[in-house]
Amino acid sequence: MELRLTSGEIIELNKGENIFSALKREGIYLVASCGGKGTCGKCKVKVISGDCDVISFGKLTAEERESNLVLACRTVPKSDLLVEIPKESRLVVGDKIAIAKTKDLVGYFKSYNAALSPIVKRVYLELPPPSINDNIGDLERLKRALEEKGFNNIRFSHDFVSKMVEVLRFSNWKVELTYVESDLVPYEAIFLTSTEFCSRRYGIAVDIGTTTVVVYLVNLIKGEIIDVGSTYNSQMRHGDDVITRIVHATEGGGLEELREAVVDDINTIVNSMKERHKIETCEIDSATVAGNTTMSHLFWGLNPGTIREDPYIPTLNRFPLWKGGTAKLSINRQAPVYTVPCVASYVGGDIVAGVLASKMHRNSEVALFMDIGTNGEIALGNNEWIMTAACSAGPCFEGSGVRCGMRATPGAIEAVRIDPVTFEPEIRVIGEGHPMGICGSGMIDAISEMFLTGVINQKGKFVSGTTDRIRHGEDGPEFVFYVDEKLHRSIVLTEVDIENLLRAKAAVYAGITTLLGEVGFTIDSIEKVYIAGGFGNYINVERAIMLGMLPDMPREKFAFIGNSSLTGAYLCLLSEDLRKEAEEIASKMTYMELSVSRNFMDEYMSALFLPHTDMGQFPTVAALMGGAR
Amino acid sequence: MELRLTSGEIIELNKGENIFSALKREGIYLVASCGGKGTCGKCKVKVISGDCDVISFGKLTAEERESNLVLACRTVPKSDLLVEIPKESRLVVGDKIAIAKTKDLVGYFKSYNAALSPIVKRVYLELPPPSINDNIGDLERLKRALEEKGFNNIRFSHDFVSKMVEVLRFSNWKVELTYVESDLVPYEAIFLTSTEFCSRRYGIAVDIGTTTVVVYLVNLIKGEIIDVGSTYNSQMRHGDDVITRIVHATEGGGLEELREAVVDDINTIVNSMKERHKIETCEIDSATVAGNTTMSHLFWGLNPGTIREDPYIPTLNRFPLWKGGTAKLSINRQAPVYTVPCVASYVGGDIVAGVLASKMHRNSEVALFMDIGTNGEIALGNNEWIMTAACSAGPCFEGSGVRCGMRATPGAIEAVRIDPVTFEPEIRVIGEGHPMGICGSGMIDAISEMFLTGVINQKGKFVSGTTDRIRHGEDGPEFVFYVDEKLHRSIVLTEVDIENLLRAKAAVYAGITTLLGEVGFTIDSIEKVYIAGGFGNYINVERAIMLGMLPDMPREKFAFIGNSSLTGAYLCLLSEDLRKEAEEIASKMTYMELSVSRNFMDEYMSALFLPHTDMGQFPTVAALMGGAR
Repeated sequence: MELRLTSGEIIELNKGENIFSALKREGIYLVASCGGKGTCGKCKVKVISGDCDVISFGKLTAEERESNLVLACRTVPKSDLLVEIPKESRLVVGDKIAIAKTKDLVGYFKSYNAALSPIVKRVYLELPPPSINDNIGDLERLKRALEEKGFNNIRFSHDFVSKMVEVLRFSNWKVELTYVESDLVPYEAIFLTSTEFCSRRYGIAVDIGTTTVVVYLVNLIKGEIIDVGSTYNSQMRHGDDVITRIVHATEGGGLEELREAVVDDINTIVNSMKERHKIETCEIDSATVAGNTTMSHLFWGLNPGTIREDPYIPTLNRFPLWKGGTAKLSINRQAPVYTVPCVASYVGGDIVAGVLASKMHRNSEVALFMDIGTNGEIALGNNEWIMTAACSAGPCFEGSGVRCGMRATPGAIEAVRIDPVTFEPEIRVIGEGHPMGICGSGMIDAISEMFLTGVINQKGKFVSGTTDRIRHGEDGPEFVFYVDEKLHRSIVLTEVDIENLLRAKAAVYAGITTLLGEVGFTIDSIEKVYIAGGFGNYINVERAIMLGMLPDMPREKFAFIGNSSLTGAYLCLLSEDLRKEAEEIASKMTYMELSVSRNFMDEYMSALFLPHTDMGQFPTVAALMGGAR
Repeated sequence: MELRLTSGEIIELNKGENIFSALKREGIYLVASCGGKGTCGKCKVKVISGDCDVISFGKLTAEERESNLVLACRTVPKSDLLVEIPKESRLVVGDKIAIAKTKDLVGYFKSYNAALSPIVKRVYLELPPPSINDNIGDLERLKRALEEKGFNNIRFSHDFVSKMVEVLRFSNWKVELTYVESDLVPYEAIFLTSTEFCSRRYGIAVDIGTTTVVVYLVNLIKGEIIDVGSTYNSQMRHGDDVITRIVHATEGGGLEELREAVVDDINTIVNSMKERHKIETCEIDSATVAGNTTMSHLFWGLNPGTIREDPYIPTLNRFPLWKGGTAKLSINRQAPVYTVPCVASYVGGDIVAGVLASKMHRNSEVALFMDIGTNGEIALGNNEWIMTAACSAGPCFEGSGVRCGMRATPGAIEAVRIDPVTFEPEIRVIGEGHPMGICGSGMIDAISEMFLTGVINQKGKFVSGTTDRIRHGEDGPEFVFYVDEKLHRSIVLTEVDIENLLRAKAAVYAGITTLLGEVGFTIDSIEKVYIAGGFGNYINVERAIMLGMLPDMPREKFAFIGNSSLTGAYLCLLSEDLRKEAEEIASKMTYMELSVSRNFMDEYMSALFLPHTDMGQFPTVAALMGGAR
């Protein structure tokens, strides 16, 4: 049996295989937040001809069913099948992501007053060539020269010794030894180079996000960023959120698949950088990696299974300094790879790197750090203490669990206004062309506008009779933002969607207030709010406050710090002082497990309203509502 | 084209391939001291039918040529060929070797008064299981328990961490950590086991000889030897002596081939031991290896090329403590493998281990250590100093470079008497059946008997007219010890053979006198002579003195210490104190490069006689000759 696509591909089908799996096997990936388990309802494909068994239609609307749409993961072909994959169902990974312009990071690094000291150091050595009267072994000769310079007890790997002989002779006994030495790790010889070959020094700083992977190529002599590359994390083929990935990792072969996916993503970027800048593999002599705890485990091929099992324990938070070869990175095999330390199962190296990049750990004023990405981690504190927690907000602001949700890519509705009189929505779409869905910032806009105009009430329920735009759909009432007549498709937010979004924002806000309560502080104690993450860049603070996601504070206290995980990784790549600072941050951070906190549950219930049950916490919203009504 | 053997095998021939290579490709190995270069003349095969190009007949006698014998490495088939491989041409490796009975080595170990302290140690740990209130990572939990017991800054490999999670949980947080810690290496976690699984502890001690490989399986709790296994070193397929192997190693793929050969030899022995004693792979948690410098390099897959290039430099003499997995040994992947340190390119870990086993480094009396194996290394000294040298004796006492030479295996003439009146030889053959050649002890007997009876003179030349047994052969005069009428074959010693043997014994003796001269001592200063090596066990001291190979000293000063390389490896397996002693011995040994010594050349020239030009050095021989004449 064959599966044919209208785009031309022909795939031989295995017996009993569903469409989703068959496509995946051939490298054609569909959007599937749930990883192909039939729950997210996103892997829609249109059956043009042929017979198939539909196990379930999941969340498909009657309208969609009528146009022969099925869920690829719930549909098993019974005969040759011709299928069309709608544009919005296709998972585009490997695409470049628009990166916020790299600000002057060298200048920023200098502001730390930290020494430029990469992970590996180099020492130039001139050895006397061997003779009959000085006939010690090559390694002993190297050790002797090192001892003369005060280096003792260096560790030499088998790999190092295997390659040493040729380099010593090729370079006529004038070599540079690259080595590691710090308070964190014992002395180790890394590799040997001639002064002509492999003499330049580069490093990579990598942010492994659940959704995106970003890499800086850095000149380690000057600290300059030479190139930036990014891509979607191909692990998305196996699900959008961390939990789905962990489940996949614990299934046969899944761990290696996830590891390969993300390492390949990084290598693809790094290889094109090497080509572009004519850099040899051996010249990339160190790397730093920051990611949440699950991403850090998967990157190293370590099973993250225990992270999602009560009591939520990672294999490790402090990663030893393992090698590039062990990580399978296409950099010098011997290059050490520093993993920014994690704090707990749901507060990872991305947050530690982010705090390092925010400098909140250096100042006496109390600051709040928020990363509203796929998970929603927060940190509260100053130079004396830091509390941290994961809010389990889920990835709905990235489009998961929302009927028409999508990431902030071309075709996404990113901003919404609703006319308070006609209730007609005015939308702004990313890129050209028709809207295909709605992204995080669009959702925040939409909900706050619906709330302000009285389309929904404080509980997020539709106020019936307000406007014809409210209709009854498969999941109950929904608000129609856009109707695509040609494609028989509409973009809506359902009451279920709104409920999901309220849950997410409530989790974030309750996390903040719970942490504050824990230390006996209030919102007023916060001097500064750092908002991290790519998503943060597009948030309209006013609207997010109206939603009750961000605390109601003077706007100037908010600072958007972009991909602070990457900035932190970059800082750690450049300086031993800052790597130590990262370790100190991780040690200092007190992790609070919200899922077992009574206070959190109370705070969460109170935050499920728009913006909150306690309007006293949102004085500016209260004032605006007073004005609007 | 096909090559057929009378024993039934059929081998498809590649174009232009010689018989030796074709057989080797199919795993049929011929005796070839030179590794198949046409110089040793040992890979004789009999052509029964078919056409072939004989590039050269090398050392084949007219008699042999007439019986259609050719050298396999110099003969290229031109048509289908039927060939018979004579018994003496077939290289039997993988065979068991008769091992001198293991004396009570535990008792011997105890005589050192050294602590029983294997390379790895174990510590039992009971970790509190994780909970919501104690939710640090698994590795952090392990580190905390270790810190409570005073262990800090332990190194954890990626391999260790990958496997740790399962063991911790399977064993319900009660585990044994195996680790390394010594003055020689920094702390490192090796592996984790539950108290039920992998709880026994074994180690292997390996002697890698150029000719044989011997393995002890040792119970590390009690120090007892549980089993002994041995085999010929399969590297012999690529040549008998160290130099031929080095040449092979530097040819494409040769290094890996040699490494695999010897590692497979060891693994075959170890695997059958594990099966026999029902031992798990993980339970063999450490290993020690002693071999000459080339063997040590090849075992670790390190190119020994520079060892034979002036100024004769090894890659290294002191091997770091690398892992079983790196060595590809079939023991615990993480088990450390200790390589007994080498001294120089031609004085290796076998000699250091031997000196350790002799205890000469602990006593004040001056002793001489001799290993007359494939190479001929000597050491002279006491508890204050040790001089050492390699005599480049070559492997002729193991049969190489001698027309009818062979190893001490069944069929070898091992003892010879010559009737002083009739000149009829009386021979003793190892095992049953007809003699096939003559081994080292047989050669020593034969030459000393020929000398005593006046068949040869002091220069090793035949005295013409003495007896009919002297005939003129292909290489000039030869003495016939045995004639096999049926096979048209005789066993002889030629004048060229005798010359080679005199060169070898002269090298050994000159080495001794040169070292003595260097420290201003004479033969009389030597209180003890330790003769190491399997060959040593069969030497008749009187005869060897008559030959001028051993110094003329009271017989009671000679001690045969067997495979002292293996004994030393065993001692190092058991005790940190003795590993340190081995390192000290290697440091203390002053290596003398004889090949550039003027004195050695003079001593060598004087020693080319029977027993020596200076008869004053051989008073007992002089007395005997006076009596005989």
